[in-house]
Amino acid sequence: MTDFAAWTQGCQTRMESVLAEWLPPAHIAPQRLHEAMRYAVLGGGKRVRPLLAFAAGEVTGADTERVQHAAAAVELIHAYSLVHDDMPAMDDDALRRGKPTVHVEFDEATALLVGDALQSLAFDILASTPLADDAATQLNMVQLLAQAAGSRGMAGGQAIDLASVGKPLDLTELEFMHIHKTGALIRASVLLGAQCGSVPDATRTALDHYAKCIGLAFQVVDDVLDAEAPTATLGKTAGKDAANNKPTYVSLLGAARARELAQELRADAHAALDSLGTPAARLRQLADFVVERTF
Amino acid sequence: MTDFAAWTQGCQTRMESVLAEWLPPAHIAPQRLHEAMRYAVLGGGKRVRPLLAFAAGEVTGADTERVQHAAAAVELIHAYSLVHDDMPAMDDDALRRGKPTVHVEFDEATALLVGDALQSLAFDILASTPLADDAATQLNMVQLLAQAAGSRGMAGGQAIDLASVGKPLDLTELEFMHIHKTGALIRASVLLGAQCGSVPDATRTALDHYAKCIGLAFQVVDDVLDAEAPTATLGKTAGKDAANNKPTYVSLLGAARARELAQELRADAHAALDSLGTPAARLRQLADFVVERTF
Repeated sequence: MTDFAAWTQGCQTRMESVLAEWLPPAHIAPQRLHEAMRYAVLGGGKRVRPLLAFAAGEVTGADTERVQHAAAAVELIHAYSLVHDDMPAMDDDALRRGKPTVHVEFDEATALLVGDALQSLAFDILASTPLADDAATQLNMVQLLAQAAGSRGMAGGQAIDLASVGKPLDLTELEFMHIHKTGALIRASVLLGAQCGSVPDATRTALDHYAKCIGLAFQVVDDVLDAEAPTATLGKTAGKDAANNKPTYVSLLGAARARELAQELRADAHAALDSLGTPAARLRQLADFVVERTF
Repeated sequence: MTDFAAWTQGCQTRMESVLAEWLPPAHIAPQRLHEAMRYAVLGGGKRVRPLLAFAAGEVTGADTERVQHAAAAVELIHAYSLVHDDMPAMDDDALRRGKPTVHVEFDEATALLVGDALQSLAFDILASTPLADDAATQLNMVQLLAQAAGSRGMAGGQAIDLASVGKPLDLTELEFMHIHKTGALIRASVLLGAQCGSVPDATRTALDHYAKCIGLAFQVVDDVLDAEAPTATLGKTAGKDAANNKPTYVSLLGAARARELAQELRADAHAALDSLGTPAARLRQLADFVVERTF
């Protein structure tokens, strides 16, 4: 097995070129929209969701040539959500992945359309290439991504997040928000990657539990980093949650207990993979990566 | 054959209840988002796209129980585009279907998320119910809708529209914009409705040409109505195109020639249906309806 850093970089490089291929070229009309879509997606990001899809694909013996398209679809949903989330009506943020956000670099109307068109493109990808052993499974993948992105998934999580600003949430409510806001799409990443191969029920159950733990861990670590890491390291505005009076794991638990919780979730994630043996090695490493990252 | 008005009303009533069924109930979290989604979609609209889907389904012997879901998916894409289009960053409109627009009735962040979640729901619907004779055809329908909604379809048309404000477009450029902005989704309505049944190549070609004519006719008539009908009749702000210095068929051709063009497009649409015989009767009536409507 190549080492984790090399594997990660290989996946990221592959992802960049697959995304560059799917995104319409900037010289095709409407040029400015296509330029802005490429700006929003290419040249940055940890690509955590694609990494999870690739790693889950290894568990089910999925062909990487398939997984890369499912991964691209999930990443486009994530990218669209960042573009809309950064807009003045939402988080009003000027910096993302170390660059000006789309509405700052272009304009608000373009940012709105970029997000809309990226979402459409995600479903286009998921329907345009054979990704699963049969079309019925692939339709199921479309459904899974649509539900993960929608009002009872990611978009719903954003709505709960908005409604919570300045309100005292308890831990259960905070978890409910994050299971939707970040967790739904992380779960979709894992399951879509897996479904490019053959997924027995027990495997699906194990992956589902892994995804839940990793999704929450991801958010807990995000909150810790937002509270502690400098903007330059994050590539996005740090300290924003506190400034916006948003409830976070750090504000509810304190930084020390939040870091501990992340470790516990990592252990749970590892335990969920026990029955899957060696093919789940990358997923184990990703759990470590998610918890140990510093950006 | 029941008369056109009764058929139309029957379809609209069916559409309303199918949409009400697919939209998450307002008492489920996140409540405000779900309430706003229902507000954006239910209780109004001509439902032209669903009508086209139902009529096209009659040509291919499609089961109405299937067509209604495809029609709902298209209508949700249309509804989401209206919500985003009305926002301050785009057309900044306060009135839609005789009611305050979503960002006025709720707020901008909610309007953004409503549009996002409606788009996801459209793809959820298209993937969640058996709609075609086989899953491969249905995947094809997902692809068709995604491309019609995306940057080389509707969202792209919006971008071209934005870029054109205050610029002198010629007739070819105006047509290019509308083929994307309105035409792509109208074409999708017709083809998706048809694909719920069995579509020989020749039928598809005929329907495709019909859809192109009807899409342009729809826009030409929209421009005439915007220039001539009062706000109260339209249910949305009238005279807006001129106020925004937007190029329209009326500003380029004059109202008289624009009305003539609509008639020519109707004749073309009818001609496209010649080979399809009696089952295309509703599509013929819809061409008349689109051209003769006063709202």
